[in-house]
Amino acid sequence: MKPIALDAMGGDHAPQVTVEGALQAHKAGVPVLLVGDEARLRPLVQGALPIHHAPDFIAMTEHATEVRRRRESSIMVAMELLKRGEVEAVVSMGHTGATMAAALFVLGRVKGVERPALLVEFPSQKGRTFLLDGGANADCRPSFLVQFAAMGLAYAEASGVRGKVGLLSIGEEEGKGNALVLETYPLLKEAFKDRFYGNVEGRDIFLGTAEVVVTDGFTGNVVLKLAEGEARVLFGWIKESLSTGLLARIGGLLVRPALRRLYARVDPSSYGAMPLLGVEGTVFIGHGSADARAVKSALQRAHALVKAGLMDRVRASIQALHV
Amino acid sequence: MKPIALDAMGGDHAPQVTVEGALQAHKAGVPVLLVGDEARLRPLVQGALPIHHAPDFIAMTEHATEVRRRRESSIMVAMELLKRGEVEAVVSMGHTGATMAAALFVLGRVKGVERPALLVEFPSQKGRTFLLDGGANADCRPSFLVQFAAMGLAYAEASGVRGKVGLLSIGEEEGKGNALVLETYPLLKEAFKDRFYGNVEGRDIFLGTAEVVVTDGFTGNVVLKLAEGEARVLFGWIKESLSTGLLARIGGLLVRPALRRLYARVDPSSYGAMPLLGVEGTVFIGHGSADARAVKSALQRAHALVKAGLMDRVRASIQALHV
Repeated sequence: MKPIALDAMGGDHAPQVTVEGALQAHKAGVPVLLVGDEARLRPLVQGALPIHHAPDFIAMTEHATEVRRRRESSIMVAMELLKRGEVEAVVSMGHTGATMAAALFVLGRVKGVERPALLVEFPSQKGRTFLLDGGANADCRPSFLVQFAAMGLAYAEASGVRGKVGLLSIGEEEGKGNALVLETYPLLKEAFKDRFYGNVEGRDIFLGTAEVVVTDGFTGNVVLKLAEGEARVLFGWIKESLSTGLLARIGGLLVRPALRRLYARVDPSSYGAMPLLGVEGTVFIGHGSADARAVKSALQRAHALVKAGLMDRVRASIQALHV
Repeated sequence: MKPIALDAMGGDHAPQVTVEGALQAHKAGVPVLLVGDEARLRPLVQGALPIHHAPDFIAMTEHATEVRRRRESSIMVAMELLKRGEVEAVVSMGHTGATMAAALFVLGRVKGVERPALLVEFPSQKGRTFLLDGGANADCRPSFLVQFAAMGLAYAEASGVRGKVGLLSIGEEEGKGNALVLETYPLLKEAFKDRFYGNVEGRDIFLGTAEVVVTDGFTGNVVLKLAEGEARVLFGWIKESLSTGLLARIGGLLVRPALRRLYARVDPSSYGAMPLLGVEGTVFIGHGSADARAVKSALQRAHALVKAGLMDRVRASIQALHV
């Protein structure tokens, strides 16, 4: 299998953390190609991984539109490798906007997709909930959400989850929601028939009521960041409350391993990165603050999804909308 | 002080739970007037609380617009008492839509308010975050959000919290957000000067970055239900993980009281009910599933806010927008 290209220069702690994550993924059996400044990468890698040189990179503080005139930046070079079929996928922990712009510019959109979307995975009581759009499109039209649903169902299936798609709203009944939801509901019903669950509410994301949830990128991004923030703050409070009083402190020592395992389950960095669905190639985008474990997870996930035929599934699912 | 009117017939477990909560609030020093079917209430109350008879009530399954022609329903009678100045506030755990409709219909809007909004309180790392709109207006115009900000700051101050207002968005920088946010940002800046914090993100609600957060009622309601759902699911998982393995089980017994106190802090029912701001009177609306403790909290909160001069503060804050 061809390697997964990692934008080794992308992220707050690049290239140290990206290289470390790549080495871990490599040990776990994922073929990785580092893309970035060879002079900086070579001493970190010490021959353990192949490097594709890219002299430039887009800093986290630059503007996303920079990519158009920065053809030798690591993210643009990585996308070109994917476009030419030399790698199977691109993973970047760098500038989210720049990565999306580079993907769109170099790879283009899947036929039938108006707007690519970011997919977010949440742990749920029933397993996992796949939500999109996680923030690629702040304002959406109803047709975008129908395409998000098709791509989300395809991604879920490639991840081994068959399920239904729900429309995020503020009431279960048809007729509850904002203007976008009211217009989207009948379109989803027509396109997906009994695979459309109907409206779901905020709480259903963690309950796992529908496996795939679609919403506009504004709401989706607020949801993503709220869920992360709440988990962090709650676990911080738990830690605090287990260090107050002798009994709680003794108990705290005993339950620490169990709570740590649980936090790893809900911690967003265990998911590594979000796929950008709807561009002509497999692209995963992670947090700029990603640690080596997140980089490794992202590479493993990209590898697994490529093997599961993600792109063909997405194309087929979108095509089925137009039959 | 005049009493707080409680719609004794509103909620999934009315009138048993509403009466129980009212009795608890009464014991805690809150003057309560029960509004509802006297024949059903009298045996529950046994003379401990005054009752104002209302022969009809709006069931949870009925349509909100019913209130217009159901003048003898408990919620409409309660609003009429407030309008006539016979009570200080109305609290209802009944039909949210019907309560909002009754408040608007009977009390009308505060001068200068285009749309009333529901305010939600979240626990935060710094204390409390007041978010609005919690779901009264699925689609909003920028001017609505400016009024929400004015009302939210007034409510926060009446609750003893002086602070800034943030605009919920998907990036901290000005220029990040959807069309509504981009249009609202300069209006908030102009109206609130240095009391406008700028954009905040989902995570900031629990971090407590800005004390008041404004957003449209669709996003706000998704946020509210997600936050509740996540807390419930996380605490369920914690309970589960503390019953697996001998050490964790022993530890679990020791930490249970600390975790219980913590859950009470994040549990939405400890807040009792949400104020509906922007109508000409103090109105609190709770969950239909509220228990007696939530009813008591709601009555106490309404009582405290009336004493803190909530209505005058809201009117003054809205007036200041038009100077």
